[in-house]
Amino acid sequence: MSKNVTDTPLLNNIDSPADLRKLSPNELPQVCDDIRRFLINHLSENPGHFASSMGAVELTVALHYVFNTPYDRIVWDVGHQAYGHKLLTGRREAFATNRKFGGLSGFPNPSESEYDTFSAGHASNSISAALGMAVASQLKNDSPRRNVVAVIGDASISGGLAFEGINNAANTPNNLLIVLNDNDMSIDDNVGALNSYMTHLNTSRLYNDLRYKAFRLLKSTGIVSEQRRGALLRFNNSLKSLLSRQQNIFEGLNIRYFGPFDGNDVATVVRVLNDIRDMSGPRILHLKTIKGKGYAPAEADPASWHAPGKFDPVTGKRKCDSAEGKPLKYQDVFGNTLLELARADKSIVGISAAMLSGTSMGTMQAELPDRVFDVGISEGHAVTFAGGLAKDGMKPFVAIYSSFLQRAYDHIIHDVALQNLPVTFCIDRAGLVGEDGATHHGAYDLAYLRTIPGMTIASGRDEHALRNLLYTAATTEHGPMAIRYPRGAGRNPDWKCDMKVLPAGKGERLRAGKQAAILTLGPVADDALEAARRLEAEGIDTAVYDMIFLKPIDEEILKEVAAKGCPVITVEDGTIDGGLGGAVAEWLGEHAPGTPLHRLGIPDKFIPQGSPAQLRSLAGFDTDSIVAAVKNSIK
Amino acid sequence: MSKNVTDTPLLNNIDSPADLRKLSPNELPQVCDDIRRFLINHLSENPGHFASSMGAVELTVALHYVFNTPYDRIVWDVGHQAYGHKLLTGRREAFATNRKFGGLSGFPNPSESEYDTFSAGHASNSISAALGMAVASQLKNDSPRRNVVAVIGDASISGGLAFEGINNAANTPNNLLIVLNDNDMSIDDNVGALNSYMTHLNTSRLYNDLRYKAFRLLKSTGIVSEQRRGALLRFNNSLKSLLSRQQNIFEGLNIRYFGPFDGNDVATVVRVLNDIRDMSGPRILHLKTIKGKGYAPAEADPASWHAPGKFDPVTGKRKCDSAEGKPLKYQDVFGNTLLELARADKSIVGISAAMLSGTSMGTMQAELPDRVFDVGISEGHAVTFAGGLAKDGMKPFVAIYSSFLQRAYDHIIHDVALQNLPVTFCIDRAGLVGEDGATHHGAYDLAYLRTIPGMTIASGRDEHALRNLLYTAATTEHGPMAIRYPRGAGRNPDWKCDMKVLPAGKGERLRAGKQAAILTLGPVADDALEAARRLEAEGIDTAVYDMIFLKPIDEEILKEVAAKGCPVITVEDGTIDGGLGGAVAEWLGEHAPGTPLHRLGIPDKFIPQGSPAQLRSLAGFDTDSIVAAVKNSIK
Repeated sequence: MSKNVTDTPLLNNIDSPADLRKLSPNELPQVCDDIRRFLINHLSENPGHFASSMGAVELTVALHYVFNTPYDRIVWDVGHQAYGHKLLTGRREAFATNRKFGGLSGFPNPSESEYDTFSAGHASNSISAALGMAVASQLKNDSPRRNVVAVIGDASISGGLAFEGINNAANTPNNLLIVLNDNDMSIDDNVGALNSYMTHLNTSRLYNDLRYKAFRLLKSTGIVSEQRRGALLRFNNSLKSLLSRQQNIFEGLNIRYFGPFDGNDVATVVRVLNDIRDMSGPRILHLKTIKGKGYAPAEADPASWHAPGKFDPVTGKRKCDSAEGKPLKYQDVFGNTLLELARADKSIVGISAAMLSGTSMGTMQAELPDRVFDVGISEGHAVTFAGGLAKDGMKPFVAIYSSFLQRAYDHIIHDVALQNLPVTFCIDRAGLVGEDGATHHGAYDLAYLRTIPGMTIASGRDEHALRNLLYTAATTEHGPMAIRYPRGAGRNPDWKCDMKVLPAGKGERLRAGKQAAILTLGPVADDALEAARRLEAEGIDTAVYDMIFLKPIDEEILKEVAAKGCPVITVEDGTIDGGLGGAVAEWLGEHAPGTPLHRLGIPDKFIPQGSPAQLRSLAGFDTDSIVAAVKNSIK
Repeated sequence: MSKNVTDTPLLNNIDSPADLRKLSPNELPQVCDDIRRFLINHLSENPGHFASSMGAVELTVALHYVFNTPYDRIVWDVGHQAYGHKLLTGRREAFATNRKFGGLSGFPNPSESEYDTFSAGHASNSISAALGMAVASQLKNDSPRRNVVAVIGDASISGGLAFEGINNAANTPNNLLIVLNDNDMSIDDNVGALNSYMTHLNTSRLYNDLRYKAFRLLKSTGIVSEQRRGALLRFNNSLKSLLSRQQNIFEGLNIRYFGPFDGNDVATVVRVLNDIRDMSGPRILHLKTIKGKGYAPAEADPASWHAPGKFDPVTGKRKCDSAEGKPLKYQDVFGNTLLELARADKSIVGISAAMLSGTSMGTMQAELPDRVFDVGISEGHAVTFAGGLAKDGMKPFVAIYSSFLQRAYDHIIHDVALQNLPVTFCIDRAGLVGEDGATHHGAYDLAYLRTIPGMTIASGRDEHALRNLLYTAATTEHGPMAIRYPRGAGRNPDWKCDMKVLPAGKGERLRAGKQAAILTLGPVADDALEAARRLEAEGIDTAVYDMIFLKPIDEEILKEVAAKGCPVITVEDGTIDGGLGGAVAEWLGEHAPGTPLHRLGIPDKFIPQGSPAQLRSLAGFDTDSIVAAVKNSIK
């Protein structure tokens, strides 16, 4: 992109943070401007997460300026905000490949750069991981002292894991610095008591400012030593409570607190970081930032600019493809259908973990706000809370992305399945999700749910089947029930249909055939049908069955297939071990040994980012792979 | 037990809380005495959890006295403290069967009594579950108002799930009452910032007492209405901060706080509960109790009286069986071996989630306290923290019970496996655990770990193999590695041995045979060998293989077995689907269709409490079951 040479003159010469650290402090605002311009230029053409990184530019520049990265460690939470970090750490040129197959990961990724210190993508892990690094450094007596910084947003810090990390950090010898990047905004509106609390903290900025200035003065005169800081801290807290009439949770937990400061003022952030860098003990620095900062359309509507797709950099006009006549996203089919069902049954309630818009549960919330609960980033609580609701007569529908539901595995077993409660898990983004990559693929749900007693597990092959399964969950008696569906658009422009009950454990023969039998679960049925048509053209007669239910599995279909004596090919958008292929293998081994089996699905390794089609090919369960597997099986 | 008739005169006439509520307030101390006497009499003969229930007697009596149970809901967290609750709710006679096969569950259990409102056993779920019930009641407009109370200990409240529950409760319309039963003590010493914080809260009791008295006075004069409570609360908080020079975290989170009060004074607890019962909005009542209260030996050493086994009720002398010449517990083999390895390698660190003594990691802590981290009840943090330590060069050994490790499933995938970090998961209490029952069986770990890319999963058949696997984890290069072992004693009095590396993916043929092949994982190998001996006596020639590793699985053994053309029987102390049996089924289906398979293990249902031998028989993988399965397979 030639325009960058003139647009971003300082950034163009920063190939690593060492280059950044050669600049004078008064050049840093220009670096920030360059980064913003670069992000706008690139992300308007190659979409990604936008508003979070725009808001975090100054804190990113300041961290790399003040700390000696990569010797010092920065651990980014989630990583939506880390594009600036990628630009400063040698990935400016490669940024054009962001989120593409074979390109840069959209999240910090340790296999990509030594500056990316830890896996990111699932919220709230940064404090725990950074604490591990800080403790490791102490145990190894690293010299010079190695600083470790966790950067966490105000939404992520409300997760239970972050609380566990803070609780442990306060009680373990370490010098961890936690930077709270508070833009008062998660992907959707922030919720929860901690968030209200932080909003109040901000109102006492005047007091905190005074306190900080007093601290700097005392420090410069040598009156405040590290040894005396405990007493001073207590005095400060009392003074603060008196003046601001409120409490500071973090100091209550024995973590030294600084802030809030303007996190979009790079000089301020550099100054404060320099002041607190060498202190001992765990510390929290609270920075207020503006999500989307520096790009007016994003500042005005940061939620919709979280990941805006392509846009015109000058006007801010989005370049959405017209949806006219195209299939709806599965998410919207879910959202519309849930509302339809909830209108008819007052006992239906919806639960989301900070993903009301992502899951389209917002559709129900808009009309029935009292019956939709967005619990924030807390998947475990979402499930246990649903258990309590179900125990006293409600029918909770919990919509969580497959890979995030992993956080609630125990809660599904202990707080729902053990009591056989009628909670419906609407497992969004199941299977390969595409550009978000390894941390976000919903690969494991079929396998990890299948061994839980009493679970019903289903996946429809199209929008109508999804609607029917939701209707089945709403209108029939059942225990825990999981309904999985993929990210993105279906294939059926006419998604509306009358709904009917799909009986548990009953699949469907989509196509008869004698030489091989393909068993599928979910929308991959279409690929199997296409494969069967191609095979037919080559004279190979292939049956296709849509199992619909993984559990209970349709034993009549398995008997029918086994009776043919032909090879069985399973196809699923999930891990190849333990899911549909596993269930079929177990049944055949016990009831029909002699039936050759070929399993297609996500292989036993982590799959990177790319388009869904590229990834299905890579994983080996696209149409070509199915055709090849059938041919191979009948050799 | 005839002695109870004279010992516990009031309790003997309480068949339900309705009977309790007929008594006058001044009879309640006698009821408390009766319950204590009953618990001492029974638990000294039929062991169970002791000290927690002793400390919670007054709050239990007061809750059932003030609230209209079972219409009002009490949700007990964990449930170690709920024996008194069982005695008051119609289970006095049945208590002699506590924790026995076919008897009462050792935890609150909804399938046992309508007074047991929710699953208990895994910590920190009570607030989320109770919030669900409180919200359900509001949505249903229950009339009269239905009160919901969560009772949670000071250890459980430090779990991330409890924080998520509080955070959500503060922001959702509900009338939940949270009773914090603070005995300053989990099973081991309590750790973490929140705990230090609560200790400090107690030091301001004088102030809180004054505040509460002022509140009662104002309320009785009618000056304080529900409408005005907000303003009063703010005033109170400011006053409190000024007087006590500290902050109240709960009020910072917008939860009304009362306490601390003496939770072992039944009159006080009844009075306070009556005062706050009908208030609206979420509230926390902080009660200080003494673990083991009313039994001097337990008060003096509450940790060791958590679950003391049999004892002499008069003298407090424990009736331990002599360990002389008997096999050590697997836990102690683990603890001793870890210390041995840690002495030799400074990079080894130990991590426990509030189970230092249960896992015997306390052995290492005693000698190397700086390298053992007890993070409290926070399994997720334990694993992510280990990830951070491993990322910067340490070799963390994380010891967590199998069923509790379910809480950290996502953390294993996202924070360890994705980066292929050398964290060793020492999975304690794997398989059927016995008397703790359904919530505590470690049934799922083999299945849920097997589908994670890069995991090594192993289980030794005896103490020597456990030592060798730990040695392998400490001295060889590997990514995430799981070593599972059961609860309780091994079978080998001579547990010490020189240690050697066990190569990953290499099993062992224990016995040759042609008519059937048994494949086992873990100590069930002994049962398989015994079965093979019995079968030999009947003329059936059976091979036995100890796979040692579930992943990578020994394909040489599978080829050898498949080449025999005889039936294969898998035996594992884990769920029958998805684990060893699943892995073998998948391999045979693809590589050797025609090999009949029979899988033995924990069937697809929840298994209750009982002795391990009873439960293995029930589940169908004891020696008799193996013999029967082999005979059946060769028919």
